[in-house]
Amino acid sequence: MVILRSWLHVDDYSHFSIYNIPFGIISTASNGTPRVALAIGTYVLDLADFVRGNGFSALSTIQPHQNVFSKPTLNNFAALGRPLHRVVREYLQSVLLQDGPFPDILENNQELRQSCLIPLQQVQAHLPMQIGDYTDFYAGLHHAYNVGVLFRGPENALQPNYMHLPVGYHGRASSVVVSGTPVRRPNGQILHDPAAATKQPMLAPSKKLDIELELGCFVCKPNALGQPISINEAPEHLFGLVLMNDWSARDIQAWEYVPLGPFNGKNFATTISAWVVLMDALDPFMSTGIQDEQPVLPYLDENQRKSHPDISLTVSLTPDSTGKASTIARTNAKNLLFSFPQMLAHHTIGGCPFNVGDLMGSGTISGTSDSEKGSLLEQTDNGKRVIALDEGVQRTFLEDGDEVSLSGFCGQPGALVGFGECTGRIETAHRLQFG
Amino acid sequence: MVILRSWLHVDDYSHFSIYNIPFGIISTASNGTPRVALAIGTYVLDLADFVRGNGFSALSTIQPHQNVFSKPTLNNFAALGRPLHRVVREYLQSVLLQDGPFPDILENNQELRQSCLIPLQQVQAHLPMQIGDYTDFYAGLHHAYNVGVLFRGPENALQPNYMHLPVGYHGRASSVVVSGTPVRRPNGQILHDPAAATKQPMLAPSKKLDIELELGCFVCKPNALGQPISINEAPEHLFGLVLMNDWSARDIQAWEYVPLGPFNGKNFATTISAWVVLMDALDPFMSTGIQDEQPVLPYLDENQRKSHPDISLTVSLTPDSTGKASTIARTNAKNLLFSFPQMLAHHTIGGCPFNVGDLMGSGTISGTSDSEKGSLLEQTDNGKRVIALDEGVQRTFLEDGDEVSLSGFCGQPGALVGFGECTGRIETAHRLQFG
Repeated sequence: MVILRSWLHVDDYSHFSIYNIPFGIISTASNGTPRVALAIGTYVLDLADFVRGNGFSALSTIQPHQNVFSKPTLNNFAALGRPLHRVVREYLQSVLLQDGPFPDILENNQELRQSCLIPLQQVQAHLPMQIGDYTDFYAGLHHAYNVGVLFRGPENALQPNYMHLPVGYHGRASSVVVSGTPVRRPNGQILHDPAAATKQPMLAPSKKLDIELELGCFVCKPNALGQPISINEAPEHLFGLVLMNDWSARDIQAWEYVPLGPFNGKNFATTISAWVVLMDALDPFMSTGIQDEQPVLPYLDENQRKSHPDISLTVSLTPDSTGKASTIARTNAKNLLFSFPQMLAHHTIGGCPFNVGDLMGSGTISGTSDSEKGSLLEQTDNGKRVIALDEGVQRTFLEDGDEVSLSGFCGQPGALVGFGECTGRIETAHRLQFG
Repeated sequence: MVILRSWLHVDDYSHFSIYNIPFGIISTASNGTPRVALAIGTYVLDLADFVRGNGFSALSTIQPHQNVFSKPTLNNFAALGRPLHRVVREYLQSVLLQDGPFPDILENNQELRQSCLIPLQQVQAHLPMQIGDYTDFYAGLHHAYNVGVLFRGPENALQPNYMHLPVGYHGRASSVVVSGTPVRRPNGQILHDPAAATKQPMLAPSKKLDIELELGCFVCKPNALGQPISINEAPEHLFGLVLMNDWSARDIQAWEYVPLGPFNGKNFATTISAWVVLMDALDPFMSTGIQDEQPVLPYLDENQRKSHPDISLTVSLTPDSTGKASTIARTNAKNLLFSFPQMLAHHTIGGCPFNVGDLMGSGTISGTSDSEKGSLLEQTDNGKRVIALDEGVQRTFLEDGDEVSLSGFCGQPGALVGFGECTGRIETAHRLQFG
């Protein structure tokens, strides 16, 4: 049931309803300085400008901290902590609310509306956070199972540790980019004939360029070296979520990853959506994830707490040749075995420190059927069969000019809490200057 | 042959001869602000204070950049690039040189000497760089072979990719700490009986806490996303080296690391030495490393360029009970199959971007004999035999209160180019509040 509406027109299918209020970093043609904004319908509200226009005059708690909205990342805002995020988000909702308590702040303030409400299409979005460390987990049970079947068969699909802990590895923070950034096909060492007696790799552009449909979660509260974050404290450490496409070069990865894990097969680009949806906006949509078949150790036990957001997810692929988007996967974020609080509790149990802005990826999210698989590796059985797109186009892995877009939302029309898009287009590999 | 001497007394066995001039970050009791210094003999030269005293008056090229010496990390100095590092280091050598060209800058300037020369023992060293991303390689051939034999036998000790590329993985930048920082024994999931039919891990303090003797290399020149650094350009991207102890919890690592690599077994602490030895100081000591049995691909081919520093390395262990240091390993940095320029060329071949301050670890450095092994895993055959320390103390893995110190130097007495120490002491694990 939709109760809240904004005095600003918001389409029923907009991801950025008044129930959402996601935060991001923007710049514009007239003001190139990156700064904080929120998204509402087809507009952004420039919060640096809102501060200049005294927009927070009715919220005294934020006034000592208003400079966070002029920063080029959300880190300072995130570091204020969840109680303040809650207050700020609810205040901004009430400012945007039809028949709300503060009509004179913005609705009836033509001058401020003119300057701080900017059409979304006119802003350049930037990476929302300065990311210190990025960790990618592997908590998508069906993905892990599907990939395990491909490489080891159904009997040994999951490793013995899989149900006991959120398996993860450290990723490359410097290669995390915002939606819209072009993704260049990587060159790398590839073993074209793995069955040959002599294993002689070549340097070549990846021929198995893939996507991974994931969620990303930003941390807003640090812990000191040596100091674990308990499962009960973990939710207060989480800032918000984004969509994430962890682009993967399967052929580079296959040759390099034993024994220390994925490296150049992953570190050429990871795309995230531009708008961080706060944990508070997602709280109404929390659900249980996949039930673990066996009890986890107490440090990971959430005691049935609902901590998996019910997010409908889609992946679409648009080939350059047709310009037509085909939806190639539909699934739900509930297909995760471990939640972000569990990931954080596990990550820190040995004392690993987190800083504000650190990012955790969920791992690829897949369901059980073919249409729910969040990677082409799974959809095509590692390139053995093609998938059909509109207008007769076929794909195994990505081709140059392909644009991939992830989308995700919670809730119902008129009250959607969505992520917008997480998009990247594949550019041709650099010509090799050495063999 | 020692030619250069300082007017400041420098012991023949000091790591910080006038041939070295390493840079670090210090604070003092009277001035708690972290700032840049160099180490010379038993002193540091406070470069923020040296700037205030007009110490760079005879070096016009650095004057527009002098604020880099007041920063709390070396990142801004590093970002000036190798040509300026070279000029600054040579100028500071000449200021410190006996019968040098600039006696009035410092030697005859009692006031400046009083304020900016500080006994090394009176300064607090800080982490020298703000580290964006940290990558750990596995380029120690004998270490990789020794570990491979332990787990897979001598026939399959090295993976097929090992001789073709510098195997590496992304580490945790937030857990890199400066020498002297205590290291808390991590708790983690451990499978106490790997042979049992039902694999049930426990949460417990690591019983197989280990060291890894490594070199670390800081990057001073960035590359853009999608833009590889060629093997010939790579040396200009390297700032300097430190010693590195990549503490490892072998039992946590053994249970977690398949299929995505080491994670909580490593991310609780990585210790580096405080003083960054510039690549220019190491240039006279460059040598060839281990000859690869097969030609590498052209993008990794250094054409016989000498790029492995000839650094004598030792590891000592001091138990709390005796307070006596025993040297448990002696080896040399030449025991690496791949050089730092090769690591950087490989790391970026797919377009992975580097920022100033990013850190690469070499991987554990071991020789071929027992006394040259850079980890306890190797020295004790994974805990199957003990090593003997002074006064009858024995060890398999580290015990609480143990202090481990890495040391390393190039050159000859009177002209040593050394790293000082890289030290950490093991603290008792946090008491588990949940089972």
